[in-house]
Amino acid sequence: MNDFTLQQKVRFQHCDPAGIVFYPRYFEMVTATVEEWFAQRLGVPFETLHGPLGAAVPTVSMTVEFNAPSRLGDVLEFRLRPARIGRSSVGLSIAAYCGAEKRLSMESTLVFTRAGASKPDSWPEDLRARISREIDGQ
Amino acid sequence: MNDFTLQQKVRFQHCDPAGIVFYPRYFEMVTATVEEWFAQRLGVPFETLHGPLGAAVPTVSMTVEFNAPSRLGDVLEFRLRPARIGRSSVGLSIAAYCGAEKRLSMESTLVFTRAGASKPDSWPEDLRARISREIDGQ
Amino acid sequence: MNDFTLQQKVRFQHCDPAGIVFYPRYFEMVTATVEEWFAQRLGVPFETLHGPLGAAVPTVSMTVEFNAPSRLGDVLEFRLRPARIGRSSVGLSIAAYCGAEKRLSMESTLVFTRAGASKPDSWPEDLRARISREIDGQ
Amino acid sequence: MNDFTLQQKVRFQHCDPAGIVFYPRYFEMVTATVEEWFAQRLGVPFETLHGPLGAAVPTVSMTVEFNAPSRLGDVLEFRLRPARIGRSSVGLSIAAYCGAEKRLSMESTLVFTRAGASKPDSWPEDLRARISREIDGQ
Repeated sequence: MNDFTLQQKVRFQHCDPAGIVFYPRYFEMVTATVEEWFAQRLGVPFETLHGPLGAAVPTVSMTVEFNAPSRLGDVLEFRLRPARIGRSSVGLSIAAYCGAEKRLSMESTLVFTRAGASKPDSWPEDLRARISREIDGQ
Repeated sequence: MNDFTLQQKVRFQHCDPAGIVFYPRYFEMVTATVEEWFAQRLGVPFETLHGPLGAAVPTVSMTVEFNAPSRLGDVLEFRLRPARIGRSSVGLSIAAYCGAEKRLSMESTLVFTRAGASKPDSWPEDLRARISREIDGQ
Repeated sequence: MNDFTLQQKVRFQHCDPAGIVFYPRYFEMVTATVEEWFAQRLGVPFETLHGPLGAAVPTVSMTVEFNAPSRLGDVLEFRLRPARIGRSSVGLSIAAYCGAEKRLSMESTLVFTRAGASKPDSWPEDLRARISREIDGQ
Repeated sequence: MNDFTLQQKVRFQHCDPAGIVFYPRYFEMVTATVEEWFAQRLGVPFETLHGPLGAAVPTVSMTVEFNAPSRLGDVLEFRLRPARIGRSSVGLSIAAYCGAEKRLSMESTLVFTRAGASKPDSWPEDLRARISREIDGQ
C-alpha cells in the first residue's frame, strides 16, 4: 500500500517572526495527518476514537529532523507510513516535502490508551488488523 | 458576487478539555479564510503581501458571537463578505456554519499597513479596485 | 476591589511574520488571565471547574479593539474587571497595557455550562456570591 | 553552573480533548525556556537576537520522550542544560518535571543563522564564549 499523503498549506498562523514555520506548528500539521490516516485508512475518525471509543493515541516518543525551512504559502505534502506495531503501540514514519525538497522527517511512537487508564492498553482487534494490513501491504 | 467560502474541518488541535473548539482557534480558521480570500478573489496571496509588497493587514477591531459550540470532526463552512472599504481599512462580515447551524458570526475591521510604518496606509489602487468590485458585485 | 492583573511577556510563539502579536494569540493570554482570576479571586481553579465540577465557562460573545501592536519581548499587563452578572453569564472588561500604552481592550460574555448540557446553567451559589462581591467591591 | 530552570503552569490552552497537554504545546513551553535562557544566561533576549542582530536560532533536530502526561493546573519545571557547542550549533538537554515526576525529556540541536542566509553561520564570539562558559561551568 502506498504512503498515506495529505497536502497542507503553510499559513500565516504557522509562521514566526523569522518568516518560517515555527516548529511546534509542524506538529499540528503532523497531527492532522495522523487524524486523516486514522479516518481514511483505519476507518476510525478521531471523533469516534475520542468519543464513543473513549480512547486516545498519545505520542510517547519521537525523533525529528527539520531538513529545510518552510515559508508562508508553501504547499507541503505530508507522507505517513506505519513502520511497526506492538501490543499497544505503533511506530510511524512521517515526512513533509515541498516539491522534491524534504522539509521534515520524523519517526514517532504512539500508544493506544483508554480514558482514565494510567497504562497503554492493547489495540482493539479491528484496529490492530487494519494497521497490520497497512504495514504488510507496503 | 457570492460570499467567499472555505471549508475547514475541526481538528484535534482546535479542541479544548471540554471537547469543543477553544475560541482562539476559531480565529486561526478565520485568518485562513481571509488569506484564501486575498489569494483567490483579490489576487494577492499573503506570501506576496507580506513578502514583496512589504505590507500587512492587521485586524484592529472585531465583534464576535459564538452562536453554538463546534466539536471534533465537524466540517465548518466559513463565509466571508466585505461590507465596506475606507481609505486604509476594510470591514468584513464572516460567519461559520456546520450544515444549517450557525456557529460563529463576526464583523471585523482590517487595515492596510506597510512594514516599519506606525500608521495605516492607503490601499494600493489595484487592491482597492478589487475589494470595491467584491462589494459592488454582491 | 481593584482590577485583577496578570503580567504576561510577549514570546516568540505569539508573534507573526510581521513581527507583532498574531491576534489569536492574545486570546490565549486573555484565557490565562481569566483562569488566574477564577483561581485567585473566585477560589475555583480551572482544573477544579473542568474536573470535579464538570463545568465549563465558554465565551459566547465579545467586542475587541486592538489599540496598538505588541512586539516580541513586550511585557503586557492584563487587567480584568467583572462588569455584570446574569443568571448564567458574566460580563468581563479586559484590557492589556504595555506601560501606559493600551494594546487591547475587550468586553466579553462568558456563560456557565455543565458537561453534556446543551444550555447554560445557573451559577452555583458560591460562585455567584464571589463574582457579585468582585463587582460590588469595585 | 546549575541547570537553567523555568516554572510554567499547564493552562487551558495547552490541553486537548483527552484532558492532557497536546504535545505540540509542550514545544511552546520549551521555546519559552530557550528564550529565557538566552535572555537570562546568555544576555541576548530574543527581541535583540531577532531584531538588531538580524539572527535566528532554528531547531534542526530533536529526540523527545513524553515520559508521563501532564494535566491542566500542573506546574512544570523546565530544566535546560547546554550539552555541546559546534561552529554554528548548540546541543541542548531539556527536561520537564512536575514535582519528582519526569514528564518530558529531549535533546535538541539549534543552529545560528542570519536573516536571508541559506546556511547556518558561525556563532558570534561573545555568544560562543557565554555558551561555552555555561557548558564548562556545569
